[in-house]
Amino acid sequence: MALFNNKQKNKPELGFGTKNYNKSVRFINQDGSVNVRRTGLGWLNNTDIYHWLINIPLSKLIMVIVLGYTLVNFLFATIYFIIGVNGFGGIDYDNGIQGFFSLFFFSAQTLTTLGYGHMYPISHAASTVAAFESLLGLMSFALATGILFGRFSRPKDSLLYSKNILISPYEGITGLMFRITNKMQYELIECEAVVSISYNDPETKKREFDQLNLETKRISFLALSWTIVHPIDDNSPIKGWTVKDLQDRDAEFLILIKGINDTFSQTVYSRYSYKGTDIVENAKFKRLQQEAGKKGEIIVSVNDIHLFDKVE
Amino acid sequence: MALFNNKQKNKPELGFGTKNYNKSVRFINQDGSVNVRRTGLGWLNNTDIYHWLINIPLSKLIMVIVLGYTLVNFLFATIYFIIGVNGFGGIDYDNGIQGFFSLFFFSAQTLTTLGYGHMYPISHAASTVAAFESLLGLMSFALATGILFGRFSRPKDSLLYSKNILISPYEGITGLMFRITNKMQYELIECEAVVSISYNDPETKKREFDQLNLETKRISFLALSWTIVHPIDDNSPIKGWTVKDLQDRDAEFLILIKGINDTFSQTVYSRYSYKGTDIVENAKFKRLQQEAGKKGEIIVSVNDIHLFDKVE
Amino acid sequence: MALFNNKQKNKPELGFGTKNYNKSVRFINQDGSVNVRRTGLGWLNNTDIYHWLINIPLSKLIMVIVLGYTLVNFLFATIYFIIGVNGFGGIDYDNGIQGFFSLFFFSAQTLTTLGYGHMYPISHAASTVAAFESLLGLMSFALATGILFGRFSRPKDSLLYSKNILISPYEGITGLMFRITNKMQYELIECEAVVSISYNDPETKKREFDQLNLETKRISFLALSWTIVHPIDDNSPIKGWTVKDLQDRDAEFLILIKGINDTFSQTVYSRYSYKGTDIVENAKFKRLQQEAGKKGEIIVSVNDIHLFDKVE
Amino acid sequence: MALFNNKQKNKPELGFGTKNYNKSVRFINQDGSVNVRRTGLGWLNNTDIYHWLINIPLSKLIMVIVLGYTLVNFLFATIYFIIGVNGFGGIDYDNGIQGFFSLFFFSAQTLTTLGYGHMYPISHAASTVAAFESLLGLMSFALATGILFGRFSRPKDSLLYSKNILISPYEGITGLMFRITNKMQYELIECEAVVSISYNDPETKKREFDQLNLETKRISFLALSWTIVHPIDDNSPIKGWTVKDLQDRDAEFLILIKGINDTFSQTVYSRYSYKGTDIVENAKFKRLQQEAGKKGEIIVSVNDIHLFDKVE
Repeated sequence: MALFNNKQKNKPELGFGTKNYNKSVRFINQDGSVNVRRTGLGWLNNTDIYHWLINIPLSKLIMVIVLGYTLVNFLFATIYFIIGVNGFGGIDYDNGIQGFFSLFFFSAQTLTTLGYGHMYPISHAASTVAAFESLLGLMSFALATGILFGRFSRPKDSLLYSKNILISPYEGITGLMFRITNKMQYELIECEAVVSISYNDPETKKREFDQLNLETKRISFLALSWTIVHPIDDNSPIKGWTVKDLQDRDAEFLILIKGINDTFSQTVYSRYSYKGTDIVENAKFKRLQQEAGKKGEIIVSVNDIHLFDKVE
Repeated sequence: MALFNNKQKNKPELGFGTKNYNKSVRFINQDGSVNVRRTGLGWLNNTDIYHWLINIPLSKLIMVIVLGYTLVNFLFATIYFIIGVNGFGGIDYDNGIQGFFSLFFFSAQTLTTLGYGHMYPISHAASTVAAFESLLGLMSFALATGILFGRFSRPKDSLLYSKNILISPYEGITGLMFRITNKMQYELIECEAVVSISYNDPETKKREFDQLNLETKRISFLALSWTIVHPIDDNSPIKGWTVKDLQDRDAEFLILIKGINDTFSQTVYSRYSYKGTDIVENAKFKRLQQEAGKKGEIIVSVNDIHLFDKVE
Repeated sequence: MALFNNKQKNKPELGFGTKNYNKSVRFINQDGSVNVRRTGLGWLNNTDIYHWLINIPLSKLIMVIVLGYTLVNFLFATIYFIIGVNGFGGIDYDNGIQGFFSLFFFSAQTLTTLGYGHMYPISHAASTVAAFESLLGLMSFALATGILFGRFSRPKDSLLYSKNILISPYEGITGLMFRITNKMQYELIECEAVVSISYNDPETKKREFDQLNLETKRISFLALSWTIVHPIDDNSPIKGWTVKDLQDRDAEFLILIKGINDTFSQTVYSRYSYKGTDIVENAKFKRLQQEAGKKGEIIVSVNDIHLFDKVE
Repeated sequence: MALFNNKQKNKPELGFGTKNYNKSVRFINQDGSVNVRRTGLGWLNNTDIYHWLINIPLSKLIMVIVLGYTLVNFLFATIYFIIGVNGFGGIDYDNGIQGFFSLFFFSAQTLTTLGYGHMYPISHAASTVAAFESLLGLMSFALATGILFGRFSRPKDSLLYSKNILISPYEGITGLMFRITNKMQYELIECEAVVSISYNDPETKKREFDQLNLETKRISFLALSWTIVHPIDDNSPIKGWTVKDLQDRDAEFLILIKGINDTFSQTVYSRYSYKGTDIVENAKFKRLQQEAGKKGEIIVSVNDIHLFDKVE
């Protein structure tokens, strides 16, 4: 935006408010979804069908397609049945259940524009409905093409987070650290991280949000792994807190990472969160196994991302 | 852009000019469209057909498709009719109105590439026209696929604005405030707001534009709601104005909000405007109902966005 | 990019080099294309077929599609002809020219997956070729869908430039100015302009490039029109030049404008250039006709963008 | 990101770690791919099928499509064969190998929605399977449309790099320089370069990464060519190194270039790397042949990008 040169509040706004919920809450789930449910407008107004179809699991989408296909054919078979079997050529059966089945398959052959032609419309009514059923088929198929393309072309989060967040010795003091790697065979560049903490303040009785300073906030390539470190120095809001303090205050570490998948020139966003039970004290991450391969390539074992050693 | 290090005018340029229209105008409609009509080039030069098809309501698009489909079939039926019914196999009727109907349905079965085959072209002329009609059908369908995909994949504005803009007590002075929420079940991150005011200056007799300072211009997550506050301090152009002043000067508050839908990594723009009649004095927004659900999720009632209490 | 904190040369780099061409050149055409032809690699290595199909005029694209369609059908008809007419059912003719025509139409009915069925493959060879022809048809059609979508969804330049660039009195000194408007019925926001000059330096005998300072380099909305002004002050490289000087030095004003079409959240780039013959001295742009319509909308006549008045 | 105002380490983070591999490694291949192989999760978890289909060579994709098509038809032919030939009309053969072949072709005519109709399903089982095969065909075709569109619409790297990286006299000192040009007939604007060096430090025995300062880090147009120069001054990490030193330390120059293809408003990323053997000392790039054509256009021979002259 062009026109921003206003004064700004000192504390960064995270947008989660400050209400104290009196029980344990989680703002971001471990799959990265934001744990907020919006009510008050009815399901239809709150939901974008396209968005929904893009995000449901593949198995559910297949079910939706197969069910929709069957339903539409059933509907058109009923219309054709009302028009009457004698409006069609190539159907030998009477207007009974067998005739309905034939019309059901005729509908399927029309909707998909298959058109074998051993059954075909004769009457004007039958021909007109069939003409529009094939148009509907093409349009539905156009929609399906868009949904499938939208599904697999959308930016996908390919980050793998360490299972735990560690409190380790770090340059004389201690640091809070977790690490990430890219599990996919393509590259992420220009990665940036923002780490915030959310906790119940025992004094104000409010849920507080604070951003945590990071040793390095940005790397050029996420080629191997990236250990993201918050130094627990004097500026840190959690300075002097024990793990028990963090757990008692229902602390949640909110992670937002942004990177660019340069194959598609797509900006990819990834969210994650750690709760108090994910913290391990006095531990240090093990180096990922790396070796040089025959063609000078670096081989890295991404699954080692979770490994750490206890330190004294 | 790389090369900008010019001096800049002190007053931000909004691009609306300074003409005084001598009657009440509205630059931005409540549906977010900019209230400008461009003339002088003829409809065709002013309109991008794709843009038009993307933005018309769904019902209108369906009408366009169905009408276009009928028209094209009518056209091809006429061509086939001129070629003559005897250029086709499987059509029993003479060259009369029944023959035309049959050719109309034959055209539909060709355009959709349905091709039952109970009617089929025999003569070279008929076969050639049918070959190109099916090509046209495929190309039109390709276009329709693109338009449908373009329609549902374009960035959609999912913001809900409070019906009113309030003048409330704010940190010792007063503040102008409205609030927004995201009504959809997906997230908006990195939201930014710009608020401007447009009014007729009684002295200069010109329509003036000014940008209003905001308490917070940017939030990281639009998880719950965001109250956007312009403190009416000494720097405010509306310092000391009454609601009647605002109405007399035909004031309009122009809102531009930008956010990122991180599911699609799409930047979403939203526009809104408030006129003098939307202002409520001595009122304060009610907190949105929020509670923690069974799984630690935050449940928020977005419809409460409009609620406020009068204050003394 | 993350890592740029190098020292930078004082003069902005435009990337056009400094060669003196000894004759009049034009870097940017009035349709916005860059006037550079790249040779040395052969046509195929220099051209991206997709890019070419996206950018050729619609009439040419239709020609490519129709020709390609005819050619592919001709090819498959030849293959079917070699297989022999007796490998097919429903074809009455011998292996003569009539048989070839029938196979040509059979190919068209297969490629488009129309499949009337009055002609059909019987032999294994014929069936196999037909099976792959229909697959090829589907894949070509998939490609065509992509190309058509790519064509109409790509960012389109909707700017209208004034025909002339004026030298007008401006705040005590003179200014070089041209203006732009958006001719389409959608909005451009966050518009930015960069204006450079290219000319032959009579002393260094080199072609020089300079960026020109602008009064306002950015506007929030391109709602009406935008007059872009370069003040010819002491910092201006063309201070003291006459129009004849500009023409003698083969001067070219290179314009690069960037804006956001917020319907599609697309960044749109527009290029334009003015040569010496486009300059008009002692002239001032006329105000665009604007009036308030019945619903408070602003009506603006975009075609007035070219109008100016001579001043003394 | 909104909230970054942390302190930052002095040394930019490249994300490649500091391990010494004890043999010659290459981080970036000359085709721009990052030379990292990720293991530990199994092929399926490491690979995104869509990404894979977008990036394999065209010949491989055609093979995948043709093989998949054949396999699916074989599968459905088997199902139809189990249902029995007598569930179909128009198939004269018994349940032998000829019947299987017919069903195979019937399957192909169903999957592509060709539907000649000389063979057609009669029994309910056959009709039902055929109805779902045609649905599967349409869905697969929708997927193929998306993959083909994804392939040719993705940002393509159109840069041509000089074969060698030169150490040349440069403004009193020496400079490390290579150059790039755009080989395509479209334009790249706002190009930025980052150049880093990776080498084994003989003292620390670690693989070090350093960013190199550039004379010009950004140009507005990549119209002709761009020579990217790192001045080997006192701040340079390779000050005083010989070519032999660079080779002994297994040095690699890592290039990352970013530009905008303004036809599609796409950001394009290009990676390249030079190793010690690509260095040429005491050489200077020859100017690209440029001349003005008949219409004032600049003709440039991009293939000259590799040419240099030895200097004393």
